[in-house]
Amino acid sequence: MKKPKIVVLGAGYGGLMTVTALQKALDQNEAEIVLVNQNDYHYETTWLHAASAGTVHYDRVRYPITSVINKYKVKFIQDTVTKIITKEKKVILKQSEISYDYLVIGLGSESETFGIQGLKEYTFSISNLNSARRIREHIECQFATYSEAKENKDSQLTFVVGGAGLTGIEFLGELTQRIPKLCKEYDINFEDLRIYCVEASSKILPDLDPELVEYAVSYLKRRGVEFKINTAIKGVTEKGIIVTKGEAEVEEIKTSTIIWAAGVRGNSVIESSGFETIRGRVKVMPDLRVPDFEDIFIVGDCTFIINEETNRPYPPTAQIAMQQGDLVAHNLEKLIRNQPDLETFVFDDKGEICSLGRNDAVGIIFGKKVKGKKASFTKKMVENQTLFKLGGPSLVAKKGKFNIL
Amino acid sequence: MKKPKIVVLGAGYGGLMTVTALQKALDQNEAEIVLVNQNDYHYETTWLHAASAGTVHYDRVRYPITSVINKYKVKFIQDTVTKIITKEKKVILKQSEISYDYLVIGLGSESETFGIQGLKEYTFSISNLNSARRIREHIECQFATYSEAKENKDSQLTFVVGGAGLTGIEFLGELTQRIPKLCKEYDINFEDLRIYCVEASSKILPDLDPELVEYAVSYLKRRGVEFKINTAIKGVTEKGIIVTKGEAEVEEIKTSTIIWAAGVRGNSVIESSGFETIRGRVKVMPDLRVPDFEDIFIVGDCTFIINEETNRPYPPTAQIAMQQGDLVAHNLEKLIRNQPDLETFVFDDKGEICSLGRNDAVGIIFGKKVKGKKASFTKKMVENQTLFKLGGPSLVAKKGKFNIL
Repeated sequence: MKKPKIVVLGAGYGGLMTVTALQKALDQNEAEIVLVNQNDYHYETTWLHAASAGTVHYDRVRYPITSVINKYKVKFIQDTVTKIITKEKKVILKQSEISYDYLVIGLGSESETFGIQGLKEYTFSISNLNSARRIREHIECQFATYSEAKENKDSQLTFVVGGAGLTGIEFLGELTQRIPKLCKEYDINFEDLRIYCVEASSKILPDLDPELVEYAVSYLKRRGVEFKINTAIKGVTEKGIIVTKGEAEVEEIKTSTIIWAAGVRGNSVIESSGFETIRGRVKVMPDLRVPDFEDIFIVGDCTFIINEETNRPYPPTAQIAMQQGDLVAHNLEKLIRNQPDLETFVFDDKGEICSLGRNDAVGIIFGKKVKGKKASFTKKMVENQTLFKLGGPSLVAKKGKFNIL
Repeated sequence: MKKPKIVVLGAGYGGLMTVTALQKALDQNEAEIVLVNQNDYHYETTWLHAASAGTVHYDRVRYPITSVINKYKVKFIQDTVTKIITKEKKVILKQSEISYDYLVIGLGSESETFGIQGLKEYTFSISNLNSARRIREHIECQFATYSEAKENKDSQLTFVVGGAGLTGIEFLGELTQRIPKLCKEYDINFEDLRIYCVEASSKILPDLDPELVEYAVSYLKRRGVEFKINTAIKGVTEKGIIVTKGEAEVEEIKTSTIIWAAGVRGNSVIESSGFETIRGRVKVMPDLRVPDFEDIFIVGDCTFIINEETNRPYPPTAQIAMQQGDLVAHNLEKLIRNQPDLETFVFDDKGEICSLGRNDAVGIIFGKKVKGKKASFTKKMVENQTLFKLGGPSLVAKKGKFNIL
């Protein structure tokens, strides 16, 4: 009898959790497990903002996929997914194709541009390791160019972050930590810099308690960040951005660095493969399968699940992706063992902490407000737990967040 | 009786040697000595190629001017020279002006563009610390951009050095040492890179023995450098350079990085102040004074002195600048003590070594050919001697080249 073939697409938090849980749950002879990912490493999306700001080297926030999978149970293919053909139960990759009996899609997110003109062309987004490295170098290049130029352009030392959600604020926390070092390196006065955070809505960190938001905002203001809330980006050009000013006016901010952190959507492969999506995300069934597809699960940023308490979709986080991966592994185990009662996904929200540079943070953990060093420490411990879940104690030893951050 | 006022413009090798020799030779009550420099540090021009390639941090190749001058004897002014008004015996600075009884001009060189279209706008030159830092960052930025871009542009990984003289070759030696590290940092295959050295004449390192040139060329070729000799640059655009190909044709090399190392000229302040110059350099008298000016000496890259053996001008080097500075200090001592028999400058050529990365070099020292590790070691010792002459043993201890390079 042929073993059922489980193909997992993507080695982010969701996909990798699925695979590591599966390899624990299943025997070698129960299923063939294949993991497909475009890089041979997993990167910690939750630390990309630091790699982008340049406060942490990207090697600290990635590890080889082979270091966490059991090669006797899981086959790893490094390739890029281009399309899923559900009718033929196969996935088209750049270099080859692969058939499946069960498919788990964990392809992550893409930057959402909301149709804003020039946004795609002229902004950076904190979306993967390559883009993080590029942001880091682009920023340093602005300092280098400014200090060498005979006629300095202010736009080179104007940094704009679009979006005051978790990613935007965490990035600002790291950026304001790196900037004094760059000023020293390139003999630049801190006063010559402008750092803006532009947010279309009226809220900074909308999911956090006002007291904590106030703490984060005042921390960043002290470090030079100017907040422009209720300010929408109308367009982006090579020279800067056009933003709204009050009700009727617009103004231009001249800058060569715009970090777009105001939204993500599901991977476009989902949409182009014919699944019904909301901004690239699929409204999955309670057991995390795609409606009408008994053999396809989705985990992570490509899922759309409504939080009944707030009536808004859960934001895409590592925490929810890992819980989903765990459940999908469990449900796959049942399917393979012919146990029909699949389990239902219920998000167990442990809270969220927003880091502010090396030793400060704000957030909610197990329902309690935390801030300052304690919050920062808690965040690191939470992330060490993530490493532990995915790769056991040896991964914590190698990549754990202790005093390095 | 008023003390005569000696003003030295520029704290490069020539100016700084003049000042440090003067402060040893003269008593406090014999003369007022003023040193003017645009930065508060001296940088070692002979190491700028390494700071530009990023193999050495620029802080290793600069030191504060105050660390080598005697503040009881020398007044330091940080300012930029804009014009010398010889009739009024004064110098116009950006912030103020200063009168002199004796003037020593050591304002260094500028990049010579030979009227090539676009050269000034689109190339980098290894001319000071700011430009070195910018070159370093620009190079890294090309790697970062290439590895992040969805469609890679080959021009981003094509590096062109214009000129196969000492600066061009030494820069290539460092660049080829740094490139493997950048490839690793940005996950780039070395095979994707192109490194060209474009030289209009038929000669590489024209002042060196053919055997040594062959050694240097084969060293760099092994590290991926392609030499295009007899190839003149006809024009530079944002996208690349147009070079000659054979007698009649031209070709375009697409690149976003052109390091121009094919020639320098004297500081333009000399010309705009009304001195007669040859490419910005002044044909000085044997005692290093300017013809018709009894009170003005010139040292370093702004002097034009014919080497009678070859009938060509001496190339601008640290070695000749320092010997000139020493002689000028000596002649000023005589003038101030009313000894009319000024001495004549005779260049004592100790040789020249061209470094090739960290541990290799070729050159002539005291008339003997050297290459390999020994040459590299000798070069470092020569530079330590320079540090010793300018700042004594403590400067050697701080900035000496031992095993760091």
